[in-house]
Amino acid sequence: MKLKSVGLKDIKFPVSVREKSGELQETVASISLHADVPKRYRDTCVSTFIAALNNHQDDMSVNILPTLLSDVQEELQAEAVHLEMTFPYFIKKKAPVTRTASLMEYTCRFTCSAGKDEDFILSVWVPVTTLCPCSKEISSAGAHNQRAEVNFNVKFKGFIWLEDLIDLVESAASSQVFALLKRPDEKHVTEQAFNNPMFVEDVVRKVAELATAHKNISWFSVGVESFESIHKHSAYAYVDSTEI
Amino acid sequence: MKLKSVGLKDIKFPVSVREKSGELQETVASISLHADVPKRYRDTCVSTFIAALNNHQDDMSVNILPTLLSDVQEELQAEAVHLEMTFPYFIKKKAPVTRTASLMEYTCRFTCSAGKDEDFILSVWVPVTTLCPCSKEISSAGAHNQRAEVNFNVKFKGFIWLEDLIDLVESAASSQVFALLKRPDEKHVTEQAFNNPMFVEDVVRKVAELATAHKNISWFSVGVESFESIHKHSAYAYVDSTEI
Amino acid sequence: MKLKSVGLKDIKFPVSVREKSGELQETVASISLHADVPKRYRDTCVSTFIAALNNHQDDMSVNILPTLLSDVQEELQAEAVHLEMTFPYFIKKKAPVTRTASLMEYTCRFTCSAGKDEDFILSVWVPVTTLCPCSKEISSAGAHNQRAEVNFNVKFKGFIWLEDLIDLVESAASSQVFALLKRPDEKHVTEQAFNNPMFVEDVVRKVAELATAHKNISWFSVGVESFESIHKHSAYAYVDSTEI
Amino acid sequence: MKLKSVGLKDIKFPVSVREKSGELQETVASISLHADVPKRYRDTCVSTFIAALNNHQDDMSVNILPTLLSDVQEELQAEAVHLEMTFPYFIKKKAPVTRTASLMEYTCRFTCSAGKDEDFILSVWVPVTTLCPCSKEISSAGAHNQRAEVNFNVKFKGFIWLEDLIDLVESAASSQVFALLKRPDEKHVTEQAFNNPMFVEDVVRKVAELATAHKNISWFSVGVESFESIHKHSAYAYVDSTEI
Repeated sequence: MKLKSVGLKDIKFPVSVREKSGELQETVASISLHADVPKRYRDTCVSTFIAALNNHQDDMSVNILPTLLSDVQEELQAEAVHLEMTFPYFIKKKAPVTRTASLMEYTCRFTCSAGKDEDFILSVWVPVTTLCPCSKEISSAGAHNQRAEVNFNVKFKGFIWLEDLIDLVESAASSQVFALLKRPDEKHVTEQAFNNPMFVEDVVRKVAELATAHKNISWFSVGVESFESIHKHSAYAYVDSTEI
Repeated sequence: MKLKSVGLKDIKFPVSVREKSGELQETVASISLHADVPKRYRDTCVSTFIAALNNHQDDMSVNILPTLLSDVQEELQAEAVHLEMTFPYFIKKKAPVTRTASLMEYTCRFTCSAGKDEDFILSVWVPVTTLCPCSKEISSAGAHNQRAEVNFNVKFKGFIWLEDLIDLVESAASSQVFALLKRPDEKHVTEQAFNNPMFVEDVVRKVAELATAHKNISWFSVGVESFESIHKHSAYAYVDSTEI
Repeated sequence: MKLKSVGLKDIKFPVSVREKSGELQETVASISLHADVPKRYRDTCVSTFIAALNNHQDDMSVNILPTLLSDVQEELQAEAVHLEMTFPYFIKKKAPVTRTASLMEYTCRFTCSAGKDEDFILSVWVPVTTLCPCSKEISSAGAHNQRAEVNFNVKFKGFIWLEDLIDLVESAASSQVFALLKRPDEKHVTEQAFNNPMFVEDVVRKVAELATAHKNISWFSVGVESFESIHKHSAYAYVDSTEI
Repeated sequence: MKLKSVGLKDIKFPVSVREKSGELQETVASISLHADVPKRYRDTCVSTFIAALNNHQDDMSVNILPTLLSDVQEELQAEAVHLEMTFPYFIKKKAPVTRTASLMEYTCRFTCSAGKDEDFILSVWVPVTTLCPCSKEISSAGAHNQRAEVNFNVKFKGFIWLEDLIDLVESAASSQVFALLKRPDEKHVTEQAFNNPMFVEDVVRKVAELATAHKNISWFSVGVESFESIHKHSAYAYVDSTEI
């Protein structure tokens, strides 16, 4: 019987991720690595993998990962090698009115396979605001709204920056979310959300439309979970490009 | 050197908790038990404890726990025995307008010590809605709102039902939260929250006022965490009765 | 654009699950429900679903779920309806030597789809002990061992009890895990694990062999995560029946 | 009624922490800030706090935090300000025999209060191996062992590096834990653990003895949770210096 994969799960490692600005951002990743191998190999795998991580630790860009994995695959003589690294990523955002700058954190993931099933998936988790169209329509004033989280995963041709994926998602909700808002900014996002009511399914559709229109995205999936302010459970919607 | 405590952490166990209605509610608890003991005793402790759990598994009411723990303490000849059991607890709530019934789940905890530091703390975690007074005041329409979680812990004289603690908290926020709301109910909770804007510190103060006025509550603490819809972080406020 | 699914995530609900013994076991599930629908439908979906849950709350057996979901699907006129319910499940196990009985908790899941993609997957997460063959071979005494968790998912023809899936997994590791062991039992499991060293990939292979040989299992996947006692990360192996 | 505290919870922020080597280590912290204030102040607090974080982001050493908090306290005219920052911290460790270097990650926390309740607590969570003395004594070969986690919290006079606290804990268990071990190293840690059996209460006592003897530690608490390889639950022991 052939094993699909053997490897390591959830090892923490400091990494540098290249920003769209050209700078390197220092962050901390949780990494899993699996290899498809014909026989027992764990000791070699760990050594090879940890060595590769150490060699490339200071520039984990989307460009370098496939090379890193190919090297590991060759050394292990594996049919395929799979890497998943999840990390917090920071972007300096400006508040919408006062332009006050603050750092927003986004969870991001690179999922990369070398060998037989060569593949690369970029994932971002983006917090946004959703405001309920039904609640707005039926109420004499106000409308329930809440934080929601959009998980957006893409395969690409050409190249895509994490910053561009996050921008795309943030343009598709009732409002963006910020780390720091002064009073004129808070007024702006409150009114923007109220003027732009969206169900989770509306956010999913909007992200999917933008992704479909993007020339560098060859596949995508998008899920939106809304932490409903009037319930203890979440509302959820999902679509992927194979459904469209 | 004397050890403060030795014991078990996070064992799952089916338990029955007595409802205010008189019924027993079947649920599943995560239980930790620690004992203050002069010497090594773990084997005995586990056997004694598991036996006690099995004997009382079918009626874990607030009344019975102290007896159960005293029995354990005596058998172990421990200076003190500490039990913490955390469990989901269900209450059938009626929607505010249509009176449609649905089950709401609340996380609850009994923290009970027998012996030297005899004590009993009831804890409830209650989801509520908070609507931001500042956002309402400065915006031409709408106001950001979100789910918040109130953690309310009390010591008591006389007796208090979990149902009464939960009621007290639910009356102290911008609005209650429900599992099932029909359209007239959704209109009602949206408008109620809009007419009742509260910061986390307002909810904390309101719960503290009601707790102070309650004849059976001898000590309390209350913390409110609001999952802000316009930020990725939470707003938080806390007070306990020793501060008042 | 067609939405794949819209629904609810992570609502807690008390359910009864039928045991192999014929008894009903009361437990608490975390439930997600999604439907594939052509248009906006959330209000109806929630009402229909909560009503269905209430009607069947007291006997959530593997037999009844497909019927429940078909009813929901028809009422919603959805192409498909998907339910995922995850719950703690208790089995009274006897210690290997003294036969002392205690309750062990296993996380279980039913994943059920009605309509276009009719499907049923049973999942169990079973804690076991793994003892490292390499560590045993190279050391003058002892061998590192640790708790591991086996996630076993199956599709079936005929019928399979959760108890049987759990038994299958527990027979495939270095040793089983228990809630309560007296000294002769602890001696037994220590020696059994030492005489039965297995890497994560060995456990995966053994579960896969037993699953392949089982006449009622039509598809399976198995993943094993071992919380290595000499590392901070986990060892992991995975296989599914499409690889064999 | 006076509020104990109002603030923010769980904001992620990139920080630099000074290593014992003199270098600065880039990492990502989860930060909570609370202030004891007589009146509503949240907007000011957030701005003041975010500004302070940005000013000091590049050198979050134990020396600088009290100054940072005093500045915040003065600006807010708060009676006290409390900061809690939790972050992964990496130390390059050498394997015991081959001296192969690899990065180990430890969760660390600074808890710092300025004003009325001036205070500073250093916390580390250190993974170690525990090997059961009872299992070794009664079994013909082998002994169950597992990963355990030691949480060690100290107040200090003079100065203490995170590296020194971690060293102290790692010397107090059956064996240390490493990210990368070659075969001679694995043999060494396996045998070391087997020759050094310890219950959770033994690890707690040993850490407490070393802490009591340390000239710069003025208060401590230590808790050990052992993820038992033969059970699904944890064994736990705790002591603090007020008990000794």
